This record gives sequence, structure tokens and C-alpha cells, in this order.
Amino acid sequence: MDLIDQIKYDEQGLAPAIIQDYINNEVLMVAYMNKEAFKRTLESGRTWFWSRSRKKYWQKGEHSGHIQNLKEILIDCDNDAILIKVEQKKAACHAGYRSCFYRKLEGQEFKVFQKKIFDEKEVYP
Amino acid sequence: MDLIDQIKYDEQGLAPAIIQDYINNEVLMVAYMNKEAFKRTLESGRTWFWSRSRKKYWQKGEHSGHIQNLKEILIDCDNDAILIKVEQKKAACHAGYRSCFYRKLEGQEFKVFQKKIFDEKEVYP
Repeated sequence: MDLIDQIKYDEQGLAPAIIQDYINNEVLMVAYMNKEAFKRTLESGRTWFWSRSRKKYWQKGEHSGHIQNLKEILIDCDNDAILIKVEQKKAACHAGYRSCFYRKLEGQEFKVFQKKIFDEKEVYP
Repeated sequence: MDLIDQIKYDEQGLAPAIIQDYINNEVLMVAYMNKEAFKRTLESGRTWFWSRSRKKYWQKGEHSGHIQNLKEILIDCDNDAILIKVEQKKAACHAGYRSCFYRKLEGQEFKVFQKKIFDEKEVYP
């Protein structure tokens, strides 16, 4: 069976891809892959996703240069989630943080706990 | 706004929850929460999910005892993915492994690289 067919995509043809820093295991982001995005990821060695809101393919870092180089690809027991360990250039989040998970629950509120590492208005004008 | 309403659930009313070991940051599993599952998680201090295939709520560990005690809850920049750091009792995967991501890509195949830590036929007879 072709490698890209080993993933069980959902009824929208998508599977969640969890992107993790290959050095410290920080979860950087979650995005979605369809067959073509997974194929492009495998072929290019960099992460490609399908944007559900913009209905288009996107490569992480295509505008910012904050690309993700593949290190390891893992699959879960149900074959319906992909875990990708990457070398993250600069930052994963378009909001200026290393990880998209830059807020955590404190009491009844999600509060920012990470430091900004770039000015998102400069990178995404 | 109520805490459970701060998550952007998808058109099926679901958001992916990535479960991570709070000690070593290993990603243990991915499952889905709707409002009620997230509410039960917050109230009980243990993870509850909505099973898309069985169409029912389930608490991780309800049969096996392999529960997940909440340590931290993070949210992503789009508010549509939840990252939960837990204290995992024994193992997250029903297949006998610590993590559901027990296979990784080697060449053109996903191969088991984790060691089994319990006999799934005894725990889930």
C-alpha cells in the first residue's frame, strides 16, 4: 500500500498533524493534512498543510521563512493522527511566539506565558 | 465568557485534544472533546473525550485504570486545538504501549519502535 494511503483521513479527507520540536518535544502547532499535503511533505522534507479556512495548500514558512524541516514521522494506533518532529526555524506561530500554544489556563482564563520572539507585524505585514 | 465557550469547536462540535506527558513532553495520544467532554475534564481533573466512532463520552482509563490527571491546559492561537499535559498512569495506548504514537516511519513503512509495557489482552479482555 502506498505510504500516503496508510493514513485514515476523516470524512473531509483530513488528518490532524501535531508538530513537535525534535529537540525538546515542545508541541509547536496542530494543522491538517490531506493526501496531497502529506505527499508534498514527504517529497519536500518540509511540512505542507491544507487550510480548512482558506481552502488551499500552504507550506509552513512560505511567507515568513519559518520553515519546518522533517526529522521524524510517527503515526498513532488508529492511523488517523500524524505526529511530526521537526527542526523549527525561528518560530511556529504567526502571532510571534515559538509555539502556537503560548497561552495556558490559570484559574478561569487562558493567559500568555511565552515570550514573543519576533514582531509579527514586520514578518506578516 | 464561560471557559468552555472559549474553544472554537468545529462544525461537528469537536476540538482535537493533544495529550502530552507533563514530565518528558512525550505526546501520548490525540482524541476529541466537545463542550461537555471539556466540561467534564475541567470538573473532574481527568480527561474525558467524545468518541466519534462509538458516539459516546469516555473517560481515559475508565476500564483500564490508566487514567490521566490534569496538570496544565494550553490553547492554540486559533482557539481550536487544546494541549493537555497530564500525569499518565501506566500507559495511554490500548495496544499496550506508553504512547499511541508507537510507530515511526522508516523508509516506506511505519515500524514499531516502542516497547510494550502491558498485555492489552489482559487489560482489555
